[in-house]
Amino acid sequence: MKRRDIYLDNLPVDEAKRRFMERLEELGALRPLNGEKIPVSSSLGRVTAGAVYAKISSPHYNSAAVDGIAVRARDTFGASETNPVRLTKEQCRYVDTGDPLPDGFDAVVMVEDIQPLENGEVELISAVYPWQHVRPIGEDIVAAEMILPENHRIRPQDIGAMLAGGVLEVEVRRRPVVSIIPTGTELVKPGSPLNPGDITEYNSEVLKGFVLEWGGTANISDIKADDYSLIRDEILKALSTSDIVIVNAGSSAGSEDYTSSIVEEIGELLVHGIASKPGKPVILGIAGGKPVIGIPGYPVSAVLAFDLFVKPLVFRLQGTLPPERTRIKATAARKIPSKIGVEEYLRVKLGDVGGRMIATPLARGAGVITSLVRADGILKIPAPLEGFHAGEEIEVELLREKRDIENTVVVIGSHDLALDILGDHIRRRYPHISLSSAHVGSMGGIMALKKGETHGAGIHLLDPETGEYNIPYLEKYLPGKEIVLVNLAYRDQGIMVKKGNPKNIKNVGDLAREGITFVNRQKGAGTRLLLDYELKKLGISPERIMGYEREEYTHMAVAAAVAGGSADAGLGILAAANSLGLDFIPVARERYDLAIPAEFMGLERVKAMLETINTPQFKKALEALGGYHTEKTGEVLKEGRV
Amino acid sequence: MKRRDIYLDNLPVDEAKRRFMERLEELGALRPLNGEKIPVSSSLGRVTAGAVYAKISSPHYNSAAVDGIAVRARDTFGASETNPVRLTKEQCRYVDTGDPLPDGFDAVVMVEDIQPLENGEVELISAVYPWQHVRPIGEDIVAAEMILPENHRIRPQDIGAMLAGGVLEVEVRRRPVVSIIPTGTELVKPGSPLNPGDITEYNSEVLKGFVLEWGGTANISDIKADDYSLIRDEILKALSTSDIVIVNAGSSAGSEDYTSSIVEEIGELLVHGIASKPGKPVILGIAGGKPVIGIPGYPVSAVLAFDLFVKPLVFRLQGTLPPERTRIKATAARKIPSKIGVEEYLRVKLGDVGGRMIATPLARGAGVITSLVRADGILKIPAPLEGFHAGEEIEVELLREKRDIENTVVVIGSHDLALDILGDHIRRRYPHISLSSAHVGSMGGIMALKKGETHGAGIHLLDPETGEYNIPYLEKYLPGKEIVLVNLAYRDQGIMVKKGNPKNIKNVGDLAREGITFVNRQKGAGTRLLLDYELKKLGISPERIMGYEREEYTHMAVAAAVAGGSADAGLGILAAANSLGLDFIPVARERYDLAIPAEFMGLERVKAMLETINTPQFKKALEALGGYHTEKTGEVLKEGRV
Repeated sequence: MKRRDIYLDNLPVDEAKRRFMERLEELGALRPLNGEKIPVSSSLGRVTAGAVYAKISSPHYNSAAVDGIAVRARDTFGASETNPVRLTKEQCRYVDTGDPLPDGFDAVVMVEDIQPLENGEVELISAVYPWQHVRPIGEDIVAAEMILPENHRIRPQDIGAMLAGGVLEVEVRRRPVVSIIPTGTELVKPGSPLNPGDITEYNSEVLKGFVLEWGGTANISDIKADDYSLIRDEILKALSTSDIVIVNAGSSAGSEDYTSSIVEEIGELLVHGIASKPGKPVILGIAGGKPVIGIPGYPVSAVLAFDLFVKPLVFRLQGTLPPERTRIKATAARKIPSKIGVEEYLRVKLGDVGGRMIATPLARGAGVITSLVRADGILKIPAPLEGFHAGEEIEVELLREKRDIENTVVVIGSHDLALDILGDHIRRRYPHISLSSAHVGSMGGIMALKKGETHGAGIHLLDPETGEYNIPYLEKYLPGKEIVLVNLAYRDQGIMVKKGNPKNIKNVGDLAREGITFVNRQKGAGTRLLLDYELKKLGISPERIMGYEREEYTHMAVAAAVAGGSADAGLGILAAANSLGLDFIPVARERYDLAIPAEFMGLERVKAMLETINTPQFKKALEALGGYHTEKTGEVLKEGRV
Repeated sequence: MKRRDIYLDNLPVDEAKRRFMERLEELGALRPLNGEKIPVSSSLGRVTAGAVYAKISSPHYNSAAVDGIAVRARDTFGASETNPVRLTKEQCRYVDTGDPLPDGFDAVVMVEDIQPLENGEVELISAVYPWQHVRPIGEDIVAAEMILPENHRIRPQDIGAMLAGGVLEVEVRRRPVVSIIPTGTELVKPGSPLNPGDITEYNSEVLKGFVLEWGGTANISDIKADDYSLIRDEILKALSTSDIVIVNAGSSAGSEDYTSSIVEEIGELLVHGIASKPGKPVILGIAGGKPVIGIPGYPVSAVLAFDLFVKPLVFRLQGTLPPERTRIKATAARKIPSKIGVEEYLRVKLGDVGGRMIATPLARGAGVITSLVRADGILKIPAPLEGFHAGEEIEVELLREKRDIENTVVVIGSHDLALDILGDHIRRRYPHISLSSAHVGSMGGIMALKKGETHGAGIHLLDPETGEYNIPYLEKYLPGKEIVLVNLAYRDQGIMVKKGNPKNIKNVGDLAREGITFVNRQKGAGTRLLLDYELKKLGISPERIMGYEREEYTHMAVAAAVAGGSADAGLGILAAANSLGLDFIPVARERYDLAIPAEFMGLERVKAMLETINTPQFKKALEALGGYHTEKTGEVLKEGRV
């Protein structure tokens, strides 16, 4: 039992990987797994455990390659148009493609080149060379030839070649078995009734999904409470039945984080803590000659650490390497700060707008699994960098196909549920087209238009002077630009409060009352402008609203804050209130439009979006949300230079 | 029952596809399939049949984002280093990451920022803002929010997001069912004893493999003899149980090709025959509102036609599109002629040599499934082109990862089994490195060196003047070039004859005897030079050898010709004779070397090859073949400017 003094340190990722892999190599723990014999017909995707040699030749006889007659080449010598050769019935045999060449014959003449005579004889007007139109034995495969090398992932055509070569069974690498042990007293299974403090354990299913994609199999243990001996015993059990053992979580250095001590007790602790964000509290160890890896609990950290340290093992044990992700060049939409000395893995959205690939960072929180769902790519910020400037060229690893990104229409601006519905309806009509929406508020949308980073901006900006929506702002911020302004919907904005309205809030004025906690939207959000407008009308200064400075970025986030009790009220749309069962006090009906630069109107994806907006199905779905009014939906409100 | 007069025509591929897809679209036969509810935990790789909405928020309570103490932000206002704030036991609660925020508290202070006092009170030297270090309800997912759109292929992270959102079951598209009906009286199952004329039916397993890769399921019928009503009944049965019906083969216009007539009888024949090579005899039809497709019998044609016409259907029925293959630019190694008016799909080998990607066409025969196994990419030659010139830039669709091609060491020249063994051993030692060998004879290898198309040439060229091997040829053809010449092996060359030597051939002189049929190697092959040298010594003119002009490109092909009876004798190596059970009359022991330009000696893959050549395992495997002598194997015979 080795024991080293290791605490949660900051090992650079590459150094951690090197240290781990070298030690595994020393112990022979990276040797490809043994083979198992399986039928060739079920070997798709498996990896050969040895070279595969043909047992028979294909074709296994000399066969006619075309329909025609078999002849002896020497009988045809001298044939020409002026001096045709006549072959007797004995000198030729009719053959179909694939028929064996009859004994004593050595060539085939295509049926088109034959002049049949009455008496069963045929006439030829050109000579043939020996073996013309014959598929000789072994043309494709010769017995004893190597068909596939070792460590080769079997594709459909490889199955064909093996069967053609008489190989019915093939020795393939055993699938690496990965045991995943979820630990944590607070964890509950998906679908369990949830009490505060309960955390749904879904990481194991995510990690299992990756293992399957990589060609392995995964065993998920029952959830283990934070108990040293429970977890140790489970690890020991897993070591006896699998090739790699994963403990998730308990990989940090807190009072209930036992994995590192357990690994020290039963094996060798090599790394505890890496300089990466997310993913820092990683444990790399070896016990019983097998890798034991502690993976952090936050889902994004878990996925990242799994990708960094487990993926290479699953492939190496199959004698292969992980596939490489496609990398593309992109432009940073805004400044991306990062901490020096830490390798950061940032999820980004990509938009192919006006000939540039624009990358916008998504939420950085390690707890936000949806950032991995929404991400188009991963931006790796090397440890020595402080990040990137806005407009800087960066390299992004793609998580989606480039073609799919190129078929995505980008809408940046105010958040609205209608955009989700629109995206869904576009995809139903045009399976190859997607809508990607980023939620940065209406003013953020206008700025994105100005910088050429979006195909359209979703905006609902009330001009307090004129009472008009959107157009005054376009005139102010995008003077001279050719814009098409299309209405998406009118919608009701109002105050969202807890079911039953326990604080008896009746209007915007009540928000300033003692004991009322508000949750606001971020600066530049149309909803915030609406609040400011209403407050101004009432002569209420924002400082009187408690919580005015607490900013959320979406209607749903505001609704969630109210539903969760961290605020008594927030301004937002009826649909958001409805979906979380909140009460709603209407304040205003406002216009939500899409502003689209004229230059993008010819793009297929933009046309698909506009066409979808005009469908009755979309309008119906919108009305069904409640609080939406579609009389003008799809109407062009303004067109031309603003 | 519509009936059109359609014969085997030459419809351009795009036109055929358009005609077929438009008609299917008209009939609603391309609508994505209905959904089926399955557990989220087994939904990996499936496609959503509708948008997925969250049922609960995640987190579902306000939780501590770090270990520390929960506080009320207002209790901390004004705290500073000079004016610390002291909190009573009632004003703070210790919390761990993930713990619910206790009622009445609104922020968390990290454990590192706390100064605990003796009496259970704590001191803070900075104020905190409300909701600091709190993960608010719905930070990741808000109940009722859309998690995934329709027609989305489910990835591991999507499984996590659904489970986090309380979704345990998901509606996914039914997997498209493809029925594959193998037809042909000559077909037998893999593993059957083979008589001349029997053809092993393996296409169905290849096509099934593709269907599985594309997300569908495949039913393979029993082989049906060429019988109109048998096949018709099977098609009708398949139409009732599947979404797409494939008939393979019988798609041409021969006397036993029934599919087109059957489709005309039971449905609508849209296309019969496309202007592509391979793949011409394709049938595109519709019956019972479902696609019925006749696929040609030659395996390469079958794969190509399946890729062109069935792949888009399998994806469309799932509401998705086929993934795109990566395209790269490459240089044509030699002239690639092609027939105008026919779209040709050529399999090519790619080599990353000296900074250029070199594409070399593989065997064009539609019957050669191994050309799809060996291919690195597909070169599509558009119908209007006559082909490409040597050195022309071409675009190739990759069948392998670019990285794998970049990790491949290219050896062009004479064929030798030792190269297969070497490739296998390299892959065992270095799973990421491959050896690709092209068989063009020794002189072909020297020419490839001269043109910079290979990392090494495999050569055994006897200089008749000096009796020396290889070096005189390098001096003559590559004067001044820095070459490292490494011995691969000495090997026995001899005359291969049928078991028992029925024609009683004893030496090269006997090849000129009446009634002896020979099979030769191609011009530039070292083995042919050896024959010429021996014939010259004996004063025998090549015209006296019957079959001298019949050329095969490999030892194995020559051995196969002898084994198959199309020749009585051929010159080749002992291992080739052994593997097909031929007798062998030794003629000479010759030196087989690898000539490597010095500039490539630093490449990792070249180093890996040379290292592998020197291993005892490789030498042992070579000796085991018989007829190989490894005393000098791996030795550098010459180095420097030649």
